[in-house]
Amino acid sequence: MAVATGRLKLETQGGGQILEITPDILKQVAASKIQRGTVTIFLTGTTAGVGVMEMEPGTVKDLQAAMERLGPRGAAYQHNAMNAGETNGHSHLQASLFGQSLVVPIEGGKPMLGTWQRIIVMDFDSRPRTREIVVQTMGE
Amino acid sequence: MAVATGRLKLETQGGGQILEITPDILKQVAASKIQRGTVTIFLTGTTAGVGVMEMEPGTVKDLQAAMERLGPRGAAYQHNAMNAGETNGHSHLQASLFGQSLVVPIEGGKPMLGTWQRIIVMDFDSRPRTREIVVQTMGE
Amino acid sequence: MAVATGRLKLETQGGGQILEITPDILKQVAASKIQRGTVTIFLTGTTAGVGVMEMEPGTVKDLQAAMERLGPRGAAYQHNAMNAGETNGHSHLQASLFGQSLVVPIEGGKPMLGTWQRIIVMDFDSRPRTREIVVQTMGE
Repeated sequence: MAVATGRLKLETQGGGQILEITPDILKQVAASKIQRGTVTIFLTGTTAGVGVMEMEPGTVKDLQAAMERLGPRGAAYQHNAMNAGETNGHSHLQASLFGQSLVVPIEGGKPMLGTWQRIIVMDFDSRPRTREIVVQTMGE
Repeated sequence: MAVATGRLKLETQGGGQILEITPDILKQVAASKIQRGTVTIFLTGTTAGVGVMEMEPGTVKDLQAAMERLGPRGAAYQHNAMNAGETNGHSHLQASLFGQSLVVPIEGGKPMLGTWQRIIVMDFDSRPRTREIVVQTMGE
Repeated sequence: MAVATGRLKLETQGGGQILEITPDILKQVAASKIQRGTVTIFLTGTTAGVGVMEMEPGTVKDLQAAMERLGPRGAAYQHNAMNAGETNGHSHLQASLFGQSLVVPIEGGKPMLGTWQRIIVMDFDSRPRTREIVVQTMGE
């Protein structure tokens, strides 16, 4: 059994931007030489998240619209009201609802994703950011 | 340490149907002979998900109603508008919000579920499907 | 490779209360002596959940308000209607949407949390409870 911990850096624009990271995950899993086990994908911020979806322009727009409904940009947030200068209350809220941790099983040296499944980062912040995603493989 | 990768096939009806898979998970964990570790349950589709709930007719209806509010069937979806013939934009959206990956710790050869916790598959698609769920145990 | 399974008990008030458990998780990861691997945090109830957020009075209020919008206390629930005496249909619903399982990678003997990330328990029940959270580390 072995553990390999990699990192992935990503420049994001925020505002609900969705970026696919499947090729990066495939590369790091292959580099780890682990044949069977899990890959844990963990985003270290509090205004972005990781998830799984079919990556198609329409589904991207639909998910963006839904996250906007869950935490509308223009609404009143206590995070902004109680902290002078803060404008990303909606980003924190959307991120906590969306989640930062994803575990995918590995077999034959590859994540066992379905035909249409893609791994994505969704950035909810109100400004561009540099994101760090931990990609940790564990297994044999 | 060992890794055992199993699969579970399920015929689903879609439309928010909730199916319990706890007995199947218990069986696969027992067959793996792993006493301590984790079981990762991963659904390989983009219009269904996995989760945990108390499995009771009332909570089932309440969760179905809530997912319908998050992605109403009758609303306008870009997935449908931009892809001729597609009618399951709401299914993709609901699935991305609900999640496809679940990790449960194992001790004494059993998933450490609480008294009322059941593992479920929720299918959001607009038609019957055959679902494949990966059930991977890792530990000692 | 090794597996260490700990438990954490927590007295909660319900009603959307958010409690930080990061120090408890750090302590159990340190006690496990595991340097590289994962920690799985699993809440064994059906009316509370675990998550990640920036822990600040404003974001706490914003998340509480959002979960209340997803499953309003005063709305009609089938769980309550179909089970005499039950009043926590909204709690079950909120918990199923929020999730009970969280996996965080470990490196250098510590969970790889970002600067502002805190691990929380959110209790949605309509009465005080004693919660049990499984904290399982796996790795080397």
